[in-house]
Amino acid sequence: VDTSIPLVTPSAAYPPPTPEELQALRRLGSEFRVQDGREALPVDPGKVSQRTMLPGARLGRFVRVGSTDRDVGEVEAVFDPAKTGTRSERWAGWLRRTAIGPPLNSTALQQERMSKKVALPVLSSDALSSVAYGPQAMLVVLVLAGTTGLDLALPIAAAIVVLILAVSISYRQTIRAYPHGGGSYIVASDNLGHVPGLAAAAGLMGDYILTVAVSVSSGVAAITSAIPSIAGAAVPIGVGVIALLLYGNLRGLRQAGRIFAIPTYAFIVTMIVLIVVGLIDAAGDGFVAHQPNIVATQGVTLLLVLRAFGSGATAMTGIEAISDGVPAFQPVEWRNARTTLTWMAGLLVTLFAGTTLLAHFHGTVPTSSETVLSQLGHSAFGTGPMYVVLQATTALILLLAANTAFNDFPRLLFFLARDGFAPKAFLRMGDRLAFSNGIVALAVVATVLYIAFDGNTDRLIPLYAVGVFLAFTLSQSAMVVRWWRLRERGWPHSMVANGGGAVLSAIVLLVEAGTKFTEGAWLVVVLVPALMGLAWLIRIHYRAVRRATALTSFEVPWPLRSESPSEAGSFAVVAIGRLDAAALKALAYAAELNQPVLAVHLVPDQAAEEHFLQAWRAFGEPVRLEILRSPYRALVAPLAQYLLGLHAEKADLVMTVVLPEIVPRTLWARPLHGRVISRLRRILSHEPNVVLTSVPFAV
Amino acid sequence: VDTSIPLVTPSAAYPPPTPEELQALRRLGSEFRVQDGREALPVDPGKVSQRTMLPGARLGRFVRVGSTDRDVGEVEAVFDPAKTGTRSERWAGWLRRTAIGPPLNSTALQQERMSKKVALPVLSSDALSSVAYGPQAMLVVLVLAGTTGLDLALPIAAAIVVLILAVSISYRQTIRAYPHGGGSYIVASDNLGHVPGLAAAAGLMGDYILTVAVSVSSGVAAITSAIPSIAGAAVPIGVGVIALLLYGNLRGLRQAGRIFAIPTYAFIVTMIVLIVVGLIDAAGDGFVAHQPNIVATQGVTLLLVLRAFGSGATAMTGIEAISDGVPAFQPVEWRNARTTLTWMAGLLVTLFAGTTLLAHFHGTVPTSSETVLSQLGHSAFGTGPMYVVLQATTALILLLAANTAFNDFPRLLFFLARDGFAPKAFLRMGDRLAFSNGIVALAVVATVLYIAFDGNTDRLIPLYAVGVFLAFTLSQSAMVVRWWRLRERGWPHSMVANGGGAVLSAIVLLVEAGTKFTEGAWLVVVLVPALMGLAWLIRIHYRAVRRATALTSFEVPWPLRSESPSEAGSFAVVAIGRLDAAALKALAYAAELNQPVLAVHLVPDQAAEEHFLQAWRAFGEPVRLEILRSPYRALVAPLAQYLLGLHAEKADLVMTVVLPEIVPRTLWARPLHGRVISRLRRILSHEPNVVLTSVPFAV
Repeated sequence: VDTSIPLVTPSAAYPPPTPEELQALRRLGSEFRVQDGREALPVDPGKVSQRTMLPGARLGRFVRVGSTDRDVGEVEAVFDPAKTGTRSERWAGWLRRTAIGPPLNSTALQQERMSKKVALPVLSSDALSSVAYGPQAMLVVLVLAGTTGLDLALPIAAAIVVLILAVSISYRQTIRAYPHGGGSYIVASDNLGHVPGLAAAAGLMGDYILTVAVSVSSGVAAITSAIPSIAGAAVPIGVGVIALLLYGNLRGLRQAGRIFAIPTYAFIVTMIVLIVVGLIDAAGDGFVAHQPNIVATQGVTLLLVLRAFGSGATAMTGIEAISDGVPAFQPVEWRNARTTLTWMAGLLVTLFAGTTLLAHFHGTVPTSSETVLSQLGHSAFGTGPMYVVLQATTALILLLAANTAFNDFPRLLFFLARDGFAPKAFLRMGDRLAFSNGIVALAVVATVLYIAFDGNTDRLIPLYAVGVFLAFTLSQSAMVVRWWRLRERGWPHSMVANGGGAVLSAIVLLVEAGTKFTEGAWLVVVLVPALMGLAWLIRIHYRAVRRATALTSFEVPWPLRSESPSEAGSFAVVAIGRLDAAALKALAYAAELNQPVLAVHLVPDQAAEEHFLQAWRAFGEPVRLEILRSPYRALVAPLAQYLLGLHAEKADLVMTVVLPEIVPRTLWARPLHGRVISRLRRILSHEPNVVLTSVPFAV
Repeated sequence: VDTSIPLVTPSAAYPPPTPEELQALRRLGSEFRVQDGREALPVDPGKVSQRTMLPGARLGRFVRVGSTDRDVGEVEAVFDPAKTGTRSERWAGWLRRTAIGPPLNSTALQQERMSKKVALPVLSSDALSSVAYGPQAMLVVLVLAGTTGLDLALPIAAAIVVLILAVSISYRQTIRAYPHGGGSYIVASDNLGHVPGLAAAAGLMGDYILTVAVSVSSGVAAITSAIPSIAGAAVPIGVGVIALLLYGNLRGLRQAGRIFAIPTYAFIVTMIVLIVVGLIDAAGDGFVAHQPNIVATQGVTLLLVLRAFGSGATAMTGIEAISDGVPAFQPVEWRNARTTLTWMAGLLVTLFAGTTLLAHFHGTVPTSSETVLSQLGHSAFGTGPMYVVLQATTALILLLAANTAFNDFPRLLFFLARDGFAPKAFLRMGDRLAFSNGIVALAVVATVLYIAFDGNTDRLIPLYAVGVFLAFTLSQSAMVVRWWRLRERGWPHSMVANGGGAVLSAIVLLVEAGTKFTEGAWLVVVLVPALMGLAWLIRIHYRAVRRATALTSFEVPWPLRSESPSEAGSFAVVAIGRLDAAALKALAYAAELNQPVLAVHLVPDQAAEEHFLQAWRAFGEPVRLEILRSPYRALVAPLAQYLLGLHAEKADLVMTVVLPEIVPRTLWARPLHGRVISRLRRILSHEPNVVLTSVPFAV
């Protein structure tokens, strides 16, 4: 699989034929009987009627099929704004269009190009919003060791700043090497192989799910800090926010620059004002830190320091976004992306360090009812309008960060599905050009997680960083391997940069997984290999399907290659229950197949047999009949067993099983008609030369 | 529907053809093309191979199909004791046979005839066991009015005794009139019509469900009264007992006389000993009642008296069992049944009156931890062996009573299904000749009810009697109508007897429904009409199906009557996704149908179209192709819409839609293959002249 160019396209499920396939098709086509009566088709396939409306149309998914004048042998499904149909169908169509919007043509899919000023807010909302929970997560751990613990905030923050800079420098190399976008899955698969690629993907999937859960919980906390009276409804509010994100993304909310720009720049400005005001206050106090008097519940241990470091490092989540999105930049893409990454890293370091510094001078202690940022805001701005702006922009940027995950998660699933690691359903774009299946999957999993953890940011954080740093480590290690292999211009410098990033990320990964294992990281440690195993199973299955359906080894079955069915010796079997109109229709159809026909009827006892024979004789016994007695009253097993045995007599002939099927028009009446036919169908469908024909009879 | 002779037979779903049907069949048969090539069948349907084993066989449901030498055109499904098959299949077969037993041949179904001595325990366990909860239910109400209230126990019990006698005399008439068995549903349907019949059936169904729940809860109470330490586990124990009953009845536990005789007679004897010993004790005290000193929480009101009466009347549940089971008696059936009914009524009156009398003299007050019967036992026998015997036989007879419901409920559903009021699935007998579907349904509903009411007898009782007395009232009213209509010998006497029973039952019904409405009877009052409505809907549906599939108005569709398909102008459409081996197989099959074939392929965009055309041209374009563009990426809707439009061009032609279908062998892989085919199938199956052919490709 060529993973170098990640093309997101509606035709990804329709790859071009390979040369081997074309060769096989030519060979098979030469043996295939070309239909001579091609002109005999009694209907004109190019001029289908436009009157009929689909009876089973639901929720306004109405599509009219119309002929286009362009070409012979080509019709087009036209979007029908539900002017036709019954009243309720028109209403459902209107409802769907109003809620989700009209369907978008595949041709509407085009990559928008962003200037650096637009790209910065679009691609960095995830990373910058981490400032809202990163420093707090660090302080939550340190406060356990009381005042002594809090004193360690500054050195730990310094280490994290170093980490941010190292990883950013590393990603600058990735951007140059993958101008078409270098997501961790693609980079790791490309250079290290599928297993590391899958590990990175599994880590990233966990990351995206947690981005939604953590951003939403943190955003809700920003709101409840400002309005404590609604704190009790935090979980329902968060679920509502996820539902809103789901809805917006199903509508196909584009990453429109303007939507992102205003809140992100507003957040940046507000944060800088906060830091400046806070530092001026601190200068007024002579830069003396307020020492809150807190009783330590545990001593300062290496474990505690590492845990605080790991928690604070969650501020780095989202830093990889720019390297994923290089193709979205204006040319020269990689150069602009690099510059933007540098800006972002600078801003992230500033905000992170500034926040930690303020918390230090102010002596902020995290509480369960108010976020650290809110406390700093109160101290700097009181309860004035600036405080409200701070909380509002914080909540907004966190919402945007969660939205980023709704863009990236389905896209990752798309790539996985393209490579056979995820169900093909994730290749499909909905009628708004969004990957609806992946969007719904993310919303469901994130909601479950959010509710399971009571919407508590501090409890979610331990799960967060493991997946992120797994993906960081793998993608940067992959870059090291790449530089070593390709030895492009300037490779030693780049390799050192990526190597540094990889080593630091690996250290953080071990710290995260080790120190927070019992607090929830075990879940990620268990789930990542489980997801990898599942992906691998899916791939094995799809590969088996590809092998089985491969044209290169396929031969048209013998009876289907001969000149006439009677020569070939195909035959048909009609399974009859009651001799009613549905059964006669099936019998008539089978008789028209120009094949020898056998009728089979199953009875539980003598009386039933006599009843049937009476009717059959009156009908004139038009085909041969076999009565199958089932004295133990089983239906499916003996019928299937008999048909399989019959087929086994001449297994190379094609046996067509004709089944009269009563189809209730209403859903509720289905259980009234048993499942004999569908169970029979399932068993027989595993035989290579059995064809199943339903003659439906709608009632 | 002839409901006079309730035949329970495996061939109930296979009724004999009516004269009209036979006439229609003769007419249709004369138009039907008799297949000339009857001898051309390339396989011998009478000599199927016995080697093949069903691959999908589950849980040992293996059935071999073998030819019998008896008749040409007849093979038999033989029970295969799983000597063949894979190791795991053999093991599953052994497990099933050991747990459920080997399947029983339909011929094994025969009515066992019972002597009066055997019939008494078999048919009266339900009624007699009611003594375990009836008197207690009455006292639970009376105790609310304190000592004054308890004084009313004797007069109320006397009224109930009168009621028992009147209803018994009434049922003596039913027995004579319905020697083939006169269940309330049959008697009411027969004489009053379907609506009252359904009301009786709905009431009885509630009765059977509550018999299970109340008998189990009361039986568990008998055990926990003796062994208070396990009282905490009462609900799980009760659920276990229901599971045991389910298991036993799925095995097809016959109503073997001996199994029932010992515990029932033991219970009768023990109860009589209890009453005698108790009365002797009371005589020693000079028949002075102990007056327990209880504070009344409410006054003695008419409502209270009526509620106590209604609760005590639950002791009558099960009294109709003998009239249902007349055909099971030795000849002369009705005479023996009548005598047995008289014995049972006598015993019921004795036990009920005796228990109430004892409770009166002993001053027993119901408590939540010990049953009234257990208190009386303790007082008469101390904690000695006789007490243990009393509790054990009480628990056992209650278990048997619950088991009775497991026999009657599925039989009632069978009759309802025979008349089209319930899903046909309830007509089917499992491989142990039991109505497995009805048995499972009863167990599920009873378990839900039991758990919902915490296994508390006193809370279940208010629901109990409404359904019973509804059925009593309707069946006895039906008898009055019957006597008036037929005027058989001695009809005035019988009519008076039934009339008296009906009036008294109706009064009790009103008392039950009125006084216990808020305590739970409302549930029955709501559910009975709901069940009746559902049954009626089911019947409407089945009648519509019968009308639609009726032969009398059926004409073989025109294209299926002509001499050759090319004349008729039938055509086939193959829906192709990828041009892989599965698609080619379907194309080859379609080409063999000797009909004009059209291939249809759906694409989301230009690139996908070009990819497909490349392959199609290499293949040599053997049939006409239509490319269907779906720029909004919907799959099912445009495909179905196009096919419907195509069909609409010539709606009287038969269009065969050939669908290549990838069938994964493993269950877990199914979601990996989408549901396009099955959704398409569902939409197209509503068209009268569309036939759906799957060409399965197992992977």
